[in-house]
Amino acid sequence: MSLQPVLIDGNWERSENSVDTFQAVNPAEKRDLPEIYPVSSADDVERAVAAGKEAADQLRSTSPEQIADFLTKFAENIEARAKELVKIANLETALAKEPRLASVELPRTTNQLRQAASAARDRSWCHAIIDSHTNIRSKFGPLGGAVAVFGPNNFPFAFNSCAGGDFAAAAAAGNPVIAKANTSHPGTTKIFAQAAFDASQATGLPKAMVQLIYRLKPADGFKLVSHPLIGATGFTGSKYAGVKLKEAADRAGKPIYLEMSSVNPVFVLPGALRERPSEIAEELYASCSLGAGQFCTNPGLAVVQAGEDGESFLGKVSEHFSANTPQTLLGRNGPRDIRAGIEMLTKKGAEIVTGGQEADGPGYAFQNTLLRVSGDAFLADPEALQTEAFGTVTLLVFARDTEQVKAIAGGVEGNLTGGFYTHTQGDDDDIYEQVAPVLREKVGRLLNDKMPTGVAVVPSMNHGGPYPATGHPGFTAVGIPAAMMRFCALHCYDEVRHHRLPAEIQDKNPTRNMWRLIDGSWTQKDVERE
Amino acid sequence: MSLQPVLIDGNWERSENSVDTFQAVNPAEKRDLPEIYPVSSADDVERAVAAGKEAADQLRSTSPEQIADFLTKFAENIEARAKELVKIANLETALAKEPRLASVELPRTTNQLRQAASAARDRSWCHAIIDSHTNIRSKFGPLGGAVAVFGPNNFPFAFNSCAGGDFAAAAAAGNPVIAKANTSHPGTTKIFAQAAFDASQATGLPKAMVQLIYRLKPADGFKLVSHPLIGATGFTGSKYAGVKLKEAADRAGKPIYLEMSSVNPVFVLPGALRERPSEIAEELYASCSLGAGQFCTNPGLAVVQAGEDGESFLGKVSEHFSANTPQTLLGRNGPRDIRAGIEMLTKKGAEIVTGGQEADGPGYAFQNTLLRVSGDAFLADPEALQTEAFGTVTLLVFARDTEQVKAIAGGVEGNLTGGFYTHTQGDDDDIYEQVAPVLREKVGRLLNDKMPTGVAVVPSMNHGGPYPATGHPGFTAVGIPAAMMRFCALHCYDEVRHHRLPAEIQDKNPTRNMWRLIDGSWTQKDVERE
Repeated sequence: MSLQPVLIDGNWERSENSVDTFQAVNPAEKRDLPEIYPVSSADDVERAVAAGKEAADQLRSTSPEQIADFLTKFAENIEARAKELVKIANLETALAKEPRLASVELPRTTNQLRQAASAARDRSWCHAIIDSHTNIRSKFGPLGGAVAVFGPNNFPFAFNSCAGGDFAAAAAAGNPVIAKANTSHPGTTKIFAQAAFDASQATGLPKAMVQLIYRLKPADGFKLVSHPLIGATGFTGSKYAGVKLKEAADRAGKPIYLEMSSVNPVFVLPGALRERPSEIAEELYASCSLGAGQFCTNPGLAVVQAGEDGESFLGKVSEHFSANTPQTLLGRNGPRDIRAGIEMLTKKGAEIVTGGQEADGPGYAFQNTLLRVSGDAFLADPEALQTEAFGTVTLLVFARDTEQVKAIAGGVEGNLTGGFYTHTQGDDDDIYEQVAPVLREKVGRLLNDKMPTGVAVVPSMNHGGPYPATGHPGFTAVGIPAAMMRFCALHCYDEVRHHRLPAEIQDKNPTRNMWRLIDGSWTQKDVERE
Repeated sequence: MSLQPVLIDGNWERSENSVDTFQAVNPAEKRDLPEIYPVSSADDVERAVAAGKEAADQLRSTSPEQIADFLTKFAENIEARAKELVKIANLETALAKEPRLASVELPRTTNQLRQAASAARDRSWCHAIIDSHTNIRSKFGPLGGAVAVFGPNNFPFAFNSCAGGDFAAAAAAGNPVIAKANTSHPGTTKIFAQAAFDASQATGLPKAMVQLIYRLKPADGFKLVSHPLIGATGFTGSKYAGVKLKEAADRAGKPIYLEMSSVNPVFVLPGALRERPSEIAEELYASCSLGAGQFCTNPGLAVVQAGEDGESFLGKVSEHFSANTPQTLLGRNGPRDIRAGIEMLTKKGAEIVTGGQEADGPGYAFQNTLLRVSGDAFLADPEALQTEAFGTVTLLVFARDTEQVKAIAGGVEGNLTGGFYTHTQGDDDDIYEQVAPVLREKVGRLLNDKMPTGVAVVPSMNHGGPYPATGHPGFTAVGIPAAMMRFCALHCYDEVRHHRLPAEIQDKNPTRNMWRLIDGSWTQKDVERE
């Protein structure tokens, strides 16, 4: 089998001075897939970044409509190749073809691209501000260099580095993208890159609008994110890798947005625990086991008060965990990493209630694992007891009393989400009022009576949160247009002659529908000058 | 003279385990001022951060109106103590009492505080987004810990760590502030801290809403900005100190916003150079010499095309530089730092046209200094030739041709501003079209036919720019409400019961005037639910 080509500066070509090769694995059969992919050298990085910079320059004279057409055409290309994508993603990730890949994740992906197209066309995302009396005007604009996107292993479509949320957001804001494939699904990513590249050429975009490399040695990854000509980086993946990339980008003053680890605590307050334990136990298991527990918003931590209701709830949850067959994990390292996570938890005082071992079978799998720990033990080392075990692994914390529930919320690290289940008739309102404000500042999205998995792609979504969930508490990775704000710079124009202004901040509203903040009021009207 | 007290957790008290002391200097007389200030230890940092966290918790139940009242009352307290403030700031900085301190900077400062009060009251800044069909709602909210503010030496009022733009923005967004005084004007900062603290107590805010320390050893500064309980940091000052603080904050995943160095290039295109050289030369000198050249937006770099017009322009600028008496600098290190900057420039090929020496007289001063360099020499080491000499020092670059003008724009680092002077009848439009897009992405604010000094405090302002002008290209340090966005986190509420939602995202518009993005449209109406 010959070496797969990279896509650099508009050419599908042999990786230059490739430093190694790798193969993807079929996790359902524990077998290498036949295709051989290159580990790119710093030469590929240099070439891609330089071409990306040139593309960014060319994009300055590209209309938002053209970018919207590209994103729409890309969505169509994906739909035309849906079968092929589903087939290879299933081979590379063991995620079910139906409903997961074909009927859930693929439509979500094309929907995101179409939302991004619509945002590009609408232009309101650029937050035009016009102060007519001073003639100072500002808007957000692209970064002037390509955006590097590192995608995660767990959403081969919706978070794919060459088709997912970061790709859509970066492109819609007018930036070229350099996709660094997740090494667990290079074949899937290659098809996306083909579909995206074809769409870019069909709509007249620069030839380096979309570029693809598959893998980099860490040092070359650092080069990419800190390169003087790179615009920014979007990364979704492990905290281990994310923190190192962040350090490299930070040192160079380059923006980097990371989505790293999160245990997404769920607090089941006493009234709810008494009122509907079976229902909540079922919901908890369903959420914990989605995608074999490999979701960013997987609830890895649940908190209840100690006592009979808590023990009974534990029993119910445990039944679900032990009654259900473990699903295949995304890759070879899955069982090892889960075991390491569980070992850290048990070392710090957690006890295994059910599960705890690698599961037998043809594929990589690990038993559904439920653990328990006392509030005292949790508070003795909250950081260690929030170790993320990326699988169907949940730690139930038994708090002594309300004060301790509050203390546990205070010990929670930055997370993507945090939630409360409370009594429907208000029995938990007092406790809620004490604990919710503490949790509020630790999480990006606060939920009521709802598990955290399932991230709606809507403008109000925040798929973000304080460090170490992400690298900055003010940005979201999901939700159009908010997610686009990561990939742009604030551009102010002071007394710039009117005909030289970007259309979005000229007197006339360029789309008639675009929202602009003119002299302090949001309006779709033109600027009225005295 | 006894040691001046710090303000920690509501008490004016002796610095705990202070590691050293210092005195401010009267730069007009090169003499130490009598008051003795402590260099705080890590103990003061710990106490202030802990108290700040407690204050942040208390602020959760403080209404925006109360915060607005505080900011308004603070502005009134400043006005009541204006004479005192002007007197001590003049002693500590040698800036003129009139018009600069009393009639320009003080009103700007109180105006900023009142704008911040108005933004807090209006609430539109929090960018409420409501998607009624999914019942997901989001808004920006405070960070949950105090904001540390490091102010610069050059604006003792308007950028004061305890009264200036960062203070106003952080407080209006609902955060307590820990002010780290600029060590050149500790006495000025102390009066602001008194006025702010008094206002905070008169309006019922937490006792640690405002805290003050005067100076820290570098290691303790790193502790402050990276502390687990700190919310974020706003820093205005040198690149040397800023980069080190950034590294400490970044490593801890704590947001830090920096305004560091900027040479604010001004491109005078050939038509303008031919059309109105005297006028532009006069404007350039006026802008260069404002505040003895110690403005963040001081034009330290001007670019013209080589030839007769350029030489004649140089002559005119040089006349202004040599005809005017140097003003007193802000402090003891001024002459030394300017000399070091000039040495770097001349080492790399710049020639001194006029000035170049420390000026005689009773105060710290340096001759107005104009330098020249060829475009070739500039492009051989653009970074070194953008060394900021913080004074009335400007380097005129002579570009060979239009191509080289464009190359010079490409060699410009991240800057706060960049501007063009062009022919009034359009003779320069071709060149502008080639060069402006290149400069656009290097600067936060792009100007036409206007010098960069003079930063209007309006919503559309961007006092920011790509690294190393600041640490992130998406944020501004001036302009309300935009500057507030640095000091908040994105808070999403997913199916949170209606009575538990913050007022800003409940169905009813809490102020009737607040702008909210409901189902994709900006409106001041209530949510209409089917």
